[in-house]
Amino acid sequence: MADPRPIALDAFGGDRAPEAILEGAALAISQGVPVLLVGDTERLRGKIPRGAEVVHAPEIVGMDEPASTPLRRKPNSSIRRVFELVRDGTAQAAVTCGHSGAAMACALHVLGPLPGVDRPPLCTVVPRKDGGQLVLLDLGANVDCKPQHLAQFAVLGEAYARAVLKLERPRVGLLANGEERGKGNTQVRAAFVEIEALDLAFVGNVEPLGALRGECDVLVCDGFVGNVMLKTVEGTVEVVGHVLKEELRRRPGALFGRWLLAGSFRRFRQRTTYDSVGGAILLGVDGVAVVGHGRADARAVASALRYARSCANAGLLAAMRKDVANRLVGPGTAG
Amino acid sequence: MADPRPIALDAFGGDRAPEAILEGAALAISQGVPVLLVGDTERLRGKIPRGAEVVHAPEIVGMDEPASTPLRRKPNSSIRRVFELVRDGTAQAAVTCGHSGAAMACALHVLGPLPGVDRPPLCTVVPRKDGGQLVLLDLGANVDCKPQHLAQFAVLGEAYARAVLKLERPRVGLLANGEERGKGNTQVRAAFVEIEALDLAFVGNVEPLGALRGECDVLVCDGFVGNVMLKTVEGTVEVVGHVLKEELRRRPGALFGRWLLAGSFRRFRQRTTYDSVGGAILLGVDGVAVVGHGRADARAVASALRYARSCANAGLLAAMRKDVANRLVGPGTAG
Repeated sequence: MADPRPIALDAFGGDRAPEAILEGAALAISQGVPVLLVGDTERLRGKIPRGAEVVHAPEIVGMDEPASTPLRRKPNSSIRRVFELVRDGTAQAAVTCGHSGAAMACALHVLGPLPGVDRPPLCTVVPRKDGGQLVLLDLGANVDCKPQHLAQFAVLGEAYARAVLKLERPRVGLLANGEERGKGNTQVRAAFVEIEALDLAFVGNVEPLGALRGECDVLVCDGFVGNVMLKTVEGTVEVVGHVLKEELRRRPGALFGRWLLAGSFRRFRQRTTYDSVGGAILLGVDGVAVVGHGRADARAVASALRYARSCANAGLLAAMRKDVANRLVGPGTAG
Repeated sequence: MADPRPIALDAFGGDRAPEAILEGAALAISQGVPVLLVGDTERLRGKIPRGAEVVHAPEIVGMDEPASTPLRRKPNSSIRRVFELVRDGTAQAAVTCGHSGAAMACALHVLGPLPGVDRPPLCTVVPRKDGGQLVLLDLGANVDCKPQHLAQFAVLGEAYARAVLKLERPRVGLLANGEERGKGNTQVRAAFVEIEALDLAFVGNVEPLGALRGECDVLVCDGFVGNVMLKTVEGTVEVVGHVLKEELRRRPGALFGRWLLAGSFRRFRQRTTYDSVGGAILLGVDGVAVVGHGRADARAVASALRYARSCANAGLLAAMRKDVANRLVGPGTAG
């Protein structure tokens, strides 16, 4: 049975808050997602969507403030309160489109890491050529990683792929500049040995092209490299779309071609979870935490809410807890 | 006046050697590029394109041999000989589509690094959304870099952009996971300070999306990250092309749409230098060295030959020599 508890939503996080957030909440509620709005009730007065619950949190963390602000200077901020509601059991998951560094700091501080996890990674899903989905992590939560952190990402990403994507035995790959063993930089070569020692379906080093073609289900890398890879996918989609439109303009049937393309690109973007979800999920903390794009519009906010609920209902947290216990802190593991 | 000396071409490097190489040589010769074929004359007998000169080099380095093979076990290999012909002044540039690790090792050993350059980077050009070209380096020659290596890449990439792309004051960016100063991993933050101290038009940290949109002309990163970025561009183009074709199939006018798309994608790929050139250039060695794709076909081989000649004729080597002398080993520099 689905968990009846609501998703806690930071009403004052994101470039278009609170308007886009409230619209997104209304949309999600109409789709059957219970939402708990978190923010300054004074400011929200008269704007609360029908069916939403509200929790007061008067402080707002701006995009230009330090990530530590909600932990040090603004303990009553909405971006912190959403995670407290998850910790206390009031909400089943938290969503914020606010300051992503602050969101990660709050999630880690308030929910705490799962035992065996040193550095919770951000994770998303990228559409593959074969129609499958590639779980990519870390996306930037940890720009300087040690080999054992990459091994922890492997365990968490695999748990995600089993719980949320319902894959029985997800294939885990290590992002590298070549497929042969021994490829990669010093960090990757050491991580290879750590991941190999875990009881996972480890397929070894995988190049970006291979991963996008479907050679693995989970692709592990440090947060700097993962961020570059994800943003390169986004950037290339943008460049290709632009160049194709330009090329089509020079040809007969341009209008028809643009119509064809517009629909196809829209569907492609819909297949990109990161874009349609409007964010990423923070794995390895003791709760379900979705960190949205700062630029999220109402549709993206609603997607993030649905996504958070589907992750929670899929038993992601239980799967992560069990796996890190067995694979990272249990007896006979490499962690 | 254009240098009349030929381009030395490794006849036995690449998956389709020597056939594709010889065909490519013939094509380039017909386009006015003087070619000096390097390989086992016995095996080449009867196959040499009209107008090509030939130099004997009996040994062949296989794709599965160690990169050190031409330096240790096979001193008479064609992949080594092409660089010796450049060093001796017989050829104005070298092209090989063979073992890329071996090619880089030979170029470095035979031609030597320019004074002030510790680790020659591989470099290519990626098409940007604004119609410009993005010089990207390192692409994988150096997977473990120190901050000063990234500063050297900045100087070399800038020299390339001025000499070959004819930009007056190329904007140099440092690849990072955010634009603000202080973003990036430990390596990038240290490299920021090193590059800033050089007399370049340094625009600071640039994200992949920003770089592909045109925020800089030269994008500097370590070889591991650059390889991931380049291959992610290639992979995404492939996935987008595939998904668009699938989407079009579901729509009316599918055949017309596919015709439109096929032409547009072809033109897009032609705008990707790495693909049309069929390789990358090794900067920071004392000679012009183009390392082709192992899978290069005749057209790609001809492109690589034209590219090598245009780089040589553009005065790339003189520009690099002058810049590294002034910026990396001269007085008052940060290197």
